[in-house]
Amino acid sequence: MKPDVSAAPLGEGRDDTAREALISVLGPSGFLWEPAAMAPFARDWLNRYGEIPVGVARPANTAEVAATVRLCREHGLVIVSQGGNTGLNGGSVLGAGQRGIILSLARMNKLVTLDPLGFTVTVEAGMVLATLHDRLADEALSFPLHLGAEGSAQIGGLIATNAGGSHAFRFGMMGDCVLGLEVVLADGTVWDGTRALLKDNAGYQLRRLFAGSEGTLGIVTQAVLRLQPAPRGRATALLALDGMEQALEVGQHLRRNTGEMLSAMEFFSETGLALLLKHVPVLSRLFAETHPLYLLVELSSAAAHLDLDALLEAGLAEAFEAGLIADALIAASSVQRGAFWRLREEMPEGQRLEGIQIKHDVSVPVAQLALFIAEATRAVETVQPGIRVNPFGHLGDGNVHFNLSPPEGRADFSQQEAALSEAVYATTIAHGGSIAAEHGLGQAKVELAERTRDNVERALMKRIKRALDPDNIMNPGKVVPDGLA
Amino acid sequence: MKPDVSAAPLGEGRDDTAREALISVLGPSGFLWEPAAMAPFARDWLNRYGEIPVGVARPANTAEVAATVRLCREHGLVIVSQGGNTGLNGGSVLGAGQRGIILSLARMNKLVTLDPLGFTVTVEAGMVLATLHDRLADEALSFPLHLGAEGSAQIGGLIATNAGGSHAFRFGMMGDCVLGLEVVLADGTVWDGTRALLKDNAGYQLRRLFAGSEGTLGIVTQAVLRLQPAPRGRATALLALDGMEQALEVGQHLRRNTGEMLSAMEFFSETGLALLLKHVPVLSRLFAETHPLYLLVELSSAAAHLDLDALLEAGLAEAFEAGLIADALIAASSVQRGAFWRLREEMPEGQRLEGIQIKHDVSVPVAQLALFIAEATRAVETVQPGIRVNPFGHLGDGNVHFNLSPPEGRADFSQQEAALSEAVYATTIAHGGSIAAEHGLGQAKVELAERTRDNVERALMKRIKRALDPDNIMNPGKVVPDGLA
Repeated sequence: MKPDVSAAPLGEGRDDTAREALISVLGPSGFLWEPAAMAPFARDWLNRYGEIPVGVARPANTAEVAATVRLCREHGLVIVSQGGNTGLNGGSVLGAGQRGIILSLARMNKLVTLDPLGFTVTVEAGMVLATLHDRLADEALSFPLHLGAEGSAQIGGLIATNAGGSHAFRFGMMGDCVLGLEVVLADGTVWDGTRALLKDNAGYQLRRLFAGSEGTLGIVTQAVLRLQPAPRGRATALLALDGMEQALEVGQHLRRNTGEMLSAMEFFSETGLALLLKHVPVLSRLFAETHPLYLLVELSSAAAHLDLDALLEAGLAEAFEAGLIADALIAASSVQRGAFWRLREEMPEGQRLEGIQIKHDVSVPVAQLALFIAEATRAVETVQPGIRVNPFGHLGDGNVHFNLSPPEGRADFSQQEAALSEAVYATTIAHGGSIAAEHGLGQAKVELAERTRDNVERALMKRIKRALDPDNIMNPGKVVPDGLA
Repeated sequence: MKPDVSAAPLGEGRDDTAREALISVLGPSGFLWEPAAMAPFARDWLNRYGEIPVGVARPANTAEVAATVRLCREHGLVIVSQGGNTGLNGGSVLGAGQRGIILSLARMNKLVTLDPLGFTVTVEAGMVLATLHDRLADEALSFPLHLGAEGSAQIGGLIATNAGGSHAFRFGMMGDCVLGLEVVLADGTVWDGTRALLKDNAGYQLRRLFAGSEGTLGIVTQAVLRLQPAPRGRATALLALDGMEQALEVGQHLRRNTGEMLSAMEFFSETGLALLLKHVPVLSRLFAETHPLYLLVELSSAAAHLDLDALLEAGLAEAFEAGLIADALIAASSVQRGAFWRLREEMPEGQRLEGIQIKHDVSVPVAQLALFIAEATRAVETVQPGIRVNPFGHLGDGNVHFNLSPPEGRADFSQQEAALSEAVYATTIAHGGSIAAEHGLGQAKVELAERTRDNVERALMKRIKRALDPDNIMNPGKVVPDGLA
């Protein structure tokens, strides 16, 4: 339930003092505290988390971010940094009982410098990912991270959550694409690590540590990103398969035969496709018959003069000969390519329209994917017979969105939500996997993560947090639970 | 000068007590303390650094590493972990005045598991890089890190120093190729982070932090590495150019026209080539005339049915038309390819045979390379007129080995060594570069790194070190200077 922000308590004297101090630095347009103005920032994307903040700081530059941090420290306020607020786990809003501010980077959205010779770009943290894509298109350059929320997600938030996506197995996670960072630290000082260098071993790899730290170690204000030459061509196929074992073998053939040009291997199931077609009837099945599993594969290349369709067909030849592929379509146009991708991209939407669901973003070693999905399916069916499992995701990196809908005809999980998720996560851990693959921990998974860490890892995480944020004012309770002792 | 280890003082009572304790855990073959046996471990590759240790521990497994750390802590000994001892900056031997042990990972050299479906391998830290290459060749897989010392360098040391090499701009640095790690920490506990996962956001990216930490935060005992399909073909060209400006433009054309298949762009100068041919007369110039600069470029691909020679020629066509290339050779055989690479790889050897030299391993943003080399050359010529500059390195990532020989006919630098290096490093910093690109800091550069850090970065590095090694027993004095306060 969304809290009634119109009833936010405004009167507390200490809040007023803090607000006055922040307004004096940020100006009236740089600090929002009226309930209606704060509303878009206070709650998370799925409207599951978020307390009413003392205010929303909207600094215009790094110096204002630093001043905001210092003032919050002075006034005993915690700081939750926020990008596009598209996270699925409540990482960018206040936790229960916390008194603090949201620090939105949205106004810091400039492209600072573009270096086409060095294939780097320096941007402010608030730049929206799709805006960056647009700016680069003019230069025949690309930034290879793509995900559903790219129209709202900001670079700083993508770094803070170490976002993944469909092309991570080729181009890496968000953190892998970061060369340099500027970060405002918990004491209000500014670390200028904006070096546009791949090779920089003059100290600890701090740029790597801040990626994925969810605002708990500092606030990313600027980033230097690695770019790629824009692809000149793509070849895309939609394959119908008998199951995940076959998908793994097809993936193996493709990686070995098309190598560095392979940029996506996305799988989804008949369960998911049927849900999608039921709720979005404008889409069509594409294949005449149903098949248990579908695999969308794509090659892309910046090289000129390549016949990628022919390379894709040649790359699949062995898999065809081995009888691993039941049916296949090669996209003959960009319209058809778009139709293939839409089936994959709308998977979450089909299931959302079916009603209540439970989402799990997990990863396992690639070779374990088939076994994991089979065993996790058995495990949740044991908890609730007839439950509908809709696994989809990224074959190249073992990332599965193992999402559940209630049995056909039921509108709830018979109050078994906790037992179902436990079954999924226990199976994940048993297969050497991660309970948080590409969505981060936020508020939803921080206790789970803490529980699944062993004592040594738990202590290590806390030592890092305490070293960089000894007073626990930077997005407290995220990544490591509160109570640092 | 190598110290006379035969005169090592053995008698100190507290050393004897520590040795007895370590032998009781590691066995007589797992702990060396006789001077002759310790000699190969005590000094660094270039024989510039290294004190006589109390002993050399050679543990056989992770439990023995952990026990060694706990015993050293108990007996007040510092621990310097050592891989192949091929580092150029003295990172893997004791610093002046330190009382401690060398912990060699050499006996822990097993391949633990190879997962061809997931394209990962798990190895013990002591595995030699070339051994890994050999093992993977049988499986048509590759680990894309290559460097001169690969016949001796070990995986753990390569991770500890975040090694680079010629292919880093395509495949990343060593740290980028690490998915999981097992690390023995300063308190003797073992962090098991050996997850074979690309997407793992269930906490801070600890795996990234240990890469490049030079043994100062813990001892890497096992690693999960990302693999690539073995390349099925290569195309290699040696280009003769008028200078670095032209090289940058050629590089730009190649990246945009051959994209993901481009795997090396290595440059060297006529100064370096002349030194090499003088001292290694079996090599030949290959081009009829001399040219200021040479660029070795290579495509490689795992894809079948590609005519890489044709792609390389097409990729260079624009650069030819623009008059950027003075002369060019395309390797017609693997023998000729080997001849091209040998010129590049023997660059350090030619200069070494000329006599005394000063080496600088720096990087600058790619677009600054030409300007940097020109200005750094002017700067050192101002310090010592006639000095010979031999810059060579990696065009794709801005890494330059800016090495100096005395003026023709002189055997020394007129005692200007410090001023010459200062000039190089000041120019590096002025161009947004790093004073330590791919060789790390070790003992040679730690003070320099500390001096070039700003106050904020200096404090951050120390906080990290103190958080993970509060008693400063893990390779103290490396990465951050001693005196942590």
